Amino acid sequence: MNYQSMGSESLTQVRDELADAYQQLLAAGLSLDITRGKPSPEQLDLSNDLLSLPGEHYLDSRGTDTRNYGGDLGLPDLRAIFAEIVNVATDNIIAAGNASLELMHDATIFSLLHGTPDSLDPWAHQGTIKFLCPAPGYDRHFALTESLGIEMITVPMLPNGPDVDACAELVASDPAIKGMWAVPTYSNPTGVTFDLDVTTRLMSMPAAAPDFRIYWDNAYVVHTLVDEAPTPHPVLEIAAKAGHPNRPYVFASTSKITFAGAGVSFFASSTENIDWYRRHSSVKWIGPDKVNHLRHVQFFGDAEGVRAHMARHRELLAPKFRLVNEIFTDRLADSKVASWTDPEGGYFVSLDVIDGTAKRVVELAKQAGIALTAAGSTFPYLRDPYDRNIRIAPTMPSIDELRVAIDGVATCVLLAAADKLLAAQK
Amino acid sequence: MNYQSMGSESLTQVRDELADAYQQLLAAGLSLDITRGKPSPEQLDLSNDLLSLPGEHYLDSRGTDTRNYGGDLGLPDLRAIFAEIVNVATDNIIAAGNASLELMHDATIFSLLHGTPDSLDPWAHQGTIKFLCPAPGYDRHFALTESLGIEMITVPMLPNGPDVDACAELVASDPAIKGMWAVPTYSNPTGVTFDLDVTTRLMSMPAAAPDFRIYWDNAYVVHTLVDEAPTPHPVLEIAAKAGHPNRPYVFASTSKITFAGAGVSFFASSTENIDWYRRHSSVKWIGPDKVNHLRHVQFFGDAEGVRAHMARHRELLAPKFRLVNEIFTDRLADSKVASWTDPEGGYFVSLDVIDGTAKRVVELAKQAGIALTAAGSTFPYLRDPYDRNIRIAPTMPSIDELRVAIDGVATCVLLAAADKLLAAQK
Repeated sequence: MNYQSMGSESLTQVRDELADAYQQLLAAGLSLDITRGKPSPEQLDLSNDLLSLPGEHYLDSRGTDTRNYGGDLGLPDLRAIFAEIVNVATDNIIAAGNASLELMHDATIFSLLHGTPDSLDPWAHQGTIKFLCPAPGYDRHFALTESLGIEMITVPMLPNGPDVDACAELVASDPAIKGMWAVPTYSNPTGVTFDLDVTTRLMSMPAAAPDFRIYWDNAYVVHTLVDEAPTPHPVLEIAAKAGHPNRPYVFASTSKITFAGAGVSFFASSTENIDWYRRHSSVKWIGPDKVNHLRHVQFFGDAEGVRAHMARHRELLAPKFRLVNEIFTDRLADSKVASWTDPEGGYFVSLDVIDGTAKRVVELAKQAGIALTAAGSTFPYLRDPYDRNIRIAPTMPSIDELRVAIDGVATCVLLAAADKLLAAQK
Repeated sequence: MNYQSMGSESLTQVRDELADAYQQLLAAGLSLDITRGKPSPEQLDLSNDLLSLPGEHYLDSRGTDTRNYGGDLGLPDLRAIFAEIVNVATDNIIAAGNASLELMHDATIFSLLHGTPDSLDPWAHQGTIKFLCPAPGYDRHFALTESLGIEMITVPMLPNGPDVDACAELVASDPAIKGMWAVPTYSNPTGVTFDLDVTTRLMSMPAAAPDFRIYWDNAYVVHTLVDEAPTPHPVLEIAAKAGHPNRPYVFASTSKITFAGAGVSFFASSTENIDWYRRHSSVKWIGPDKVNHLRHVQFFGDAEGVRAHMARHRELLAPKFRLVNEIFTDRLADSKVASWTDPEGGYFVSLDVIDGTAKRVVELAKQAGIALTAAGSTFPYLRDPYDRNIRIAPTMPSIDELRVAIDGVATCVLLAAADKLLAAQK
């Protein structure tokens, strides 16, 4: 039943049936949360060996005592593993604390307060600073940007990456555009992986600002739901060849590989950028938690160990993503009032409902005890211009909880759509 | 033999003997490092139980899964332990990452970029910002301040704390003075513990800037070399009573209690300041490493456990500090060309040589293979106005290495003094 082509009478009948279904949903007294990309306890269990590491073996392979101060770049063995994972040279990656978001924040505040190696002045002395924000995108990127007073310019996400024509035009003409957000593998929330042409054009496009930077947050680089994750593009090489060696800042972390909040973050960039980062971060710490680095080295062994570990995550996650797609297909496909992603990796399903109903769907779900990420969250300033996009995080709940939650969301989507279409017919 | 009252001839003879002794020192081909306050391997061994914690027990006492996201204030059980240690209410302390220096950096950049709750504007929009820097003081405090473009004003350290008359006069008259550094227990490097009168006056003195802050870095709060550490003054209460509830930022960490670099840092302040910190830090991370927090809770048990642990550190450290005092007394006391501290706690001995010779002493020692912290390091801008102060860090080397190093330093002190006095007689 395509709601869009229904007459008023049939649509009213459908609407009444949905209202009944929604009343039953309310009566069920649910309390389910699919707001955030949190790993499930079963996923966390995969890394429990970390909990008693490093044990007696607190020296790294070079004999460094990880219990003492020193080594601001992080343990070389861990850097080597993740250099391979993100496809950069070991010399160009550092291993840091428990949050890659902090590295992004650092890179931004160092630019604001000191300027980058290519800046004529600190950004804070240059008037308005702007970042390109492909959207739907990651809410925490946008929150960080907004909190630092940086203006956000929304650019569309296309199936192969951000709209690079739009990006190129903006960046070429406006020297206030100093940065751009990118999640190149299994984007949050769309699941889009940038193709090589998009990556190459982003790294090559002329920029009016000599200190234009792309924050290349490869958070889901190994988080595949299919047999093999795509090989990350060698962005540092690509950018260097294009004459913009300092353009990309590559970020990654083990937050969704081992323990969320007790993992390790990584920053990879040109030698000049790494030196710049070290110089400014040297005033704020003596170095990262090397014991935690060593723990991760011992746990993974090598990059292949990381991939093998991610295959175990996939066994737990793939059925959940499959279930979401099955329920949405079953409940929503015929009505033509929603579309959703069936991603090959990452942590989210991106659901588009009919324009002007996303907020209502989230509110209806909330009343029914199903917590969804606030509508608008995937856009700069929390403003979805079409009130259309909802981010679904299926990883944390059990399969049974997820089934109930997604089915409930489907009811809310249909009810909101029927109401909207009926109102439009009046 | 008091060098100061010696005639030219006897002093020349002494000088020649010292030159011979220094030649022997050079010939010994030493390679010793007493630059930084690093714990020794034996001290680190005291915390080795941490290396296999938390094991299977990853839930905290409230049932929180420490392996997952959440809890930006840190684990309540750990906050309770360190609330007692630094003498604040548990609600007023948060447990964070591995570096209290990072918390100091955060507090400063948040003030620069956003302003404090008492600021009319972000500090970065207010022209020159100044901090009072009691000196000799901690070089990393000064490096952080300088890197952020904040002007440093040196104020003298007295035996009971900073010169509070000087502080009060400056702070009352200059609204650009927004901050002040303080290490209230066993100061770095002087070992001075502030008395209650100094603390109370610092927290009570009128300030021209409504957003004046004291960075109360209680890094050595439990690091006693005598039977009992002094009870920390309840600065949050004192400041609140004096009408300046938001003035103190209390910092502490376990870097020199458990593992340097793999410990936990703490920030304690008024509710308004804590809320402010949370708000701005929420854009840069989801929260601290709770597994490491839990590890520390399990290891310590309670505040008494921390104190018992510090008693074991004391057994290792007290003989080293005693040895430094013995050698300096033996080698330097009669000559009247140096004075040094014999601290009751902390990590350093502060050595004052005759004016204008600190740099030379450090250089002589370096040539002889004994690395000392650069002369001037304990002053803002690395400028010791008298070229007098040298910071000695006796914790890291073994007793035997320390004996050789300190004896060598004594030779350098005497040689530099004799040369200086002879030059003055010409």
